[in-house]
Amino acid sequence: MRVGVIGGGQLARMMVPAAVELGIDIAVLGESAESSARIAVTAVGDHTDAATVLAFARGVDVVTFDHEHVPQQVLRALVDAGVAVRPGPEALLHAQDKLVLRERLAALGVPQPAWAGVEDAAGLGAFLGSAGGAAVVKTPRGGYDGHGVRVVREAHAADDWFADGPLLAEELVPFRRELAQLVARRPSGDVAVWPLVETVQGDGVCREVFAPAPRTSARVERVAREIAHTLAGALDVTGVLAVELFETEDERVLVNELAMRPHNSGHWTIDGAVTSQFEQHLRAVLDLPLGDPSARAPWSAMVNLLGGPADGDLDARVPRAMADQPAAKLHLYGKAPRPGRKIGHVTATGDDLDDAVYAARAAVTLLQD
Amino acid sequence: MRVGVIGGGQLARMMVPAAVELGIDIAVLGESAESSARIAVTAVGDHTDAATVLAFARGVDVVTFDHEHVPQQVLRALVDAGVAVRPGPEALLHAQDKLVLRERLAALGVPQPAWAGVEDAAGLGAFLGSAGGAAVVKTPRGGYDGHGVRVVREAHAADDWFADGPLLAEELVPFRRELAQLVARRPSGDVAVWPLVETVQGDGVCREVFAPAPRTSARVERVAREIAHTLAGALDVTGVLAVELFETEDERVLVNELAMRPHNSGHWTIDGAVTSQFEQHLRAVLDLPLGDPSARAPWSAMVNLLGGPADGDLDARVPRAMADQPAAKLHLYGKAPRPGRKIGHVTATGDDLDDAVYAARAAVTLLQD
Repeated sequence: MRVGVIGGGQLARMMVPAAVELGIDIAVLGESAESSARIAVTAVGDHTDAATVLAFARGVDVVTFDHEHVPQQVLRALVDAGVAVRPGPEALLHAQDKLVLRERLAALGVPQPAWAGVEDAAGLGAFLGSAGGAAVVKTPRGGYDGHGVRVVREAHAADDWFADGPLLAEELVPFRRELAQLVARRPSGDVAVWPLVETVQGDGVCREVFAPAPRTSARVERVAREIAHTLAGALDVTGVLAVELFETEDERVLVNELAMRPHNSGHWTIDGAVTSQFEQHLRAVLDLPLGDPSARAPWSAMVNLLGGPADGDLDARVPRAMADQPAAKLHLYGKAPRPGRKIGHVTATGDDLDDAVYAARAAVTLLQD
Repeated sequence: MRVGVIGGGQLARMMVPAAVELGIDIAVLGESAESSARIAVTAVGDHTDAATVLAFARGVDVVTFDHEHVPQQVLRALVDAGVAVRPGPEALLHAQDKLVLRERLAALGVPQPAWAGVEDAAGLGAFLGSAGGAAVVKTPRGGYDGHGVRVVREAHAADDWFADGPLLAEELVPFRRELAQLVARRPSGDVAVWPLVETVQGDGVCREVFAPAPRTSARVERVAREIAHTLAGALDVTGVLAVELFETEDERVLVNELAMRPHNSGHWTIDGAVTSQFEQHLRAVLDLPLGDPSARAPWSAMVNLLGGPADGDLDARVPRAMADQPAAKLHLYGKAPRPGRKIGHVTATGDDLDDAVYAARAAVTLLQD
C-alpha cells in the first residue's frame, strides 16, 4: 500500500508516523526538499502543474492532500488519468470555494450564518443593511488562517478585493464560542465521528483546542454530529472532514468553515484519541475499515506553538520544556521559527481539563520565550 | 538535531514516528534500501565496516543502534573520530558478550542464575554435575531470538560450538514466568523506569507481553526496579535498557539477558505509556530530559505477528483485522512474511487485561490466517 500526499507541510509530516505504524509506504510531493514532511518527500515540484502532479501520482496507489490548493483542472487531469484521488475534485470544491460551500449548505438545509455573494460595493452595502451594519467579508478562494478575511462596517471597505470576482459576505455572528466537529468517511460510506471540541482562535489562527468541548449540552453535541455526518455523506467526502462551528448564546450551531483533510482542531487526537485523525485519514483514503475515534483520556488540551522564540533557536528551548512538563507531548514540525508561523503544538491529557491546559500552555511558553 | 541509527530493522523503523513528532531528523544506515526503516534510510552499507559507518556518522549529531551487532573495533573507531556513540562501546559490550555480562553481574552482586564459562566437554560436564544434570548453553556472542541457545543434559552436547571459544553454561532455572524491566538513562544520569511487564516466550521468541505484569508482589516489583536502576548506572547505559528476568516460584528475581536498545518487551509503550520506549531512547541519546514512563491505561497487551499468512499476502488480511478490532493498534513493519519472522505486532489497551489480550490476539489471528 502506497499513499501519495500532495504538499509537504506539517499535515503531511504528521501522516508519516501513522503510515509507518500501519506498514503503509508514504510519498510526498513537497514544495522543497526542506519541507516539513521532508522525510517522506520523494518529489519536489509545483502542485499547480498537471504534468508534475501526474508524474508523482504514477508511483502511488492513491493520492491525498496536505492542503486544498491543488487546482480543479489538475485534480480532473488526475481522475482522467485513472488516479484514485481522495477526496475527489467534486468534494474538494466545497473546501476550495466558500461561495460554493454556502450555496450547498443552503440547499442541504444545514444551519449557517446569513450570507450573500456580493459583486460590488452596492451589493455589500445592501448586505450590511440587512445584517445590522457589520459583516465578515471573505475571498471565496485561497484564504487560510485569517488571510482573505476582513470585518467590514462600510460598503466600500472591500473595494480592493472585488477585482478577482464576487466576495462572500456573512453576518457577524455573536457567537458564544467556536467548536469543531471532526469526522472521517471512507468511500464505502462508513463514518467515524470524534468527540466535539472547543477551539480558541486569535487573529484568525487556531490557538488552543479543548477536547471534549467543556460544558456542552447534549443538544449541541447531537446537532454538531448530525451536521458533520450529513456533510460527510452529502459532499461525498473521503478522509477527514473538519467542520468549524459557531455556538451561539441561544445554543444554535452554525457552520463557519470546513476543511477536507486533517485539521488543526484534530491534532489532539494524536495523543488523546484511540485513532488519530492522521491514521484515520490514511485508513479512509485507502478504503480500509475506520478505527475507534473515542477519546483515550477524559480531557485533552492542545496548544499551538506559533512563531517560536525570537532568536529562532527552538532547539535550545526544548530541554527546559521537556524538563518542566515530562508528561506533555511535544510536536515540532521541523520548520524555522518566524512570527505567527505554526511550527508545532503541545498536547496534554488527563483527568482534569485545567491541569491539562496548564501543562500544555506551560510547555508552549517555555518553547516560545 | 539529527540522530543516526545503525541498522534498518523494525526498531529503527519505530524510532521514526517518535523522531518526526519531536522535530528530530533521523537518518538510518540500512542493510538495504528495502530495510524495514526504509523511509529514513540515507545510506546502505555494512555495519561491520568502519569506513562505511564513519562516513554515515559524519552527517549526524549522535549515533545509536537498531541492534547490538556493530563490532567493538568499529565502535572504538567512531569514538576515536569524535562521534557521540550512545550507548558507548563499554556499555554495549555487556549486551554483546554474555560472559562479560555474567561476570559483571556477579561483581555487582545482581541476582542471576548459577553460571560458568566452559571451554570444553569436561568443563560442561563439571557444570552439569553441579547444576542438577541440566544446563542452558549459550554462545556468548551473536545469539538472538533463540539462536545460539541450547538446553543440554550431556557433557558432549555442545561439542560443535566450542571451536569459536568458551561457552556460557547456565542453570536451567525452574521459573514461574518471565518478566522484563525496561528503563532509560541519559548521560547526565537521569533514569526513567517503565512498569514491570510479563513476557511470554515460545521457541525462544517473544510472543506476548502484558503490562503491567499481572499479580505481581510489591517485593518483586521493587527488586526488578532496583536491578534495572543499578544496571543502567553501573553499565553507564545511554538510551533504553531492557532487563529480561526470571521470576522463580519462591519470588526470586534473576537476570536472564539484557538488551541495550528498544526491545520487544517495550513495544506496548507506543500505545500504552505516556512516553514510548522509542521517544525515550531518542531523548536519552540526545541527552534531553526524559519523559513520563507511566502507563496510559490500566492494562496493555502486546501480541507479536510472527510469520504472517502462508500465502504472503498480508495486505489482504489487514481490512478484516481492522474491521474486527477497531480499537486495536496495528503495527506492521513493512517486512515480507516468512515463517517465524517478526513482521508486526498489535497492542490493545483498556480497563480489563483479559479483554485487551483477547482483542490483540484476535487481530493477530486475523492477520496471520
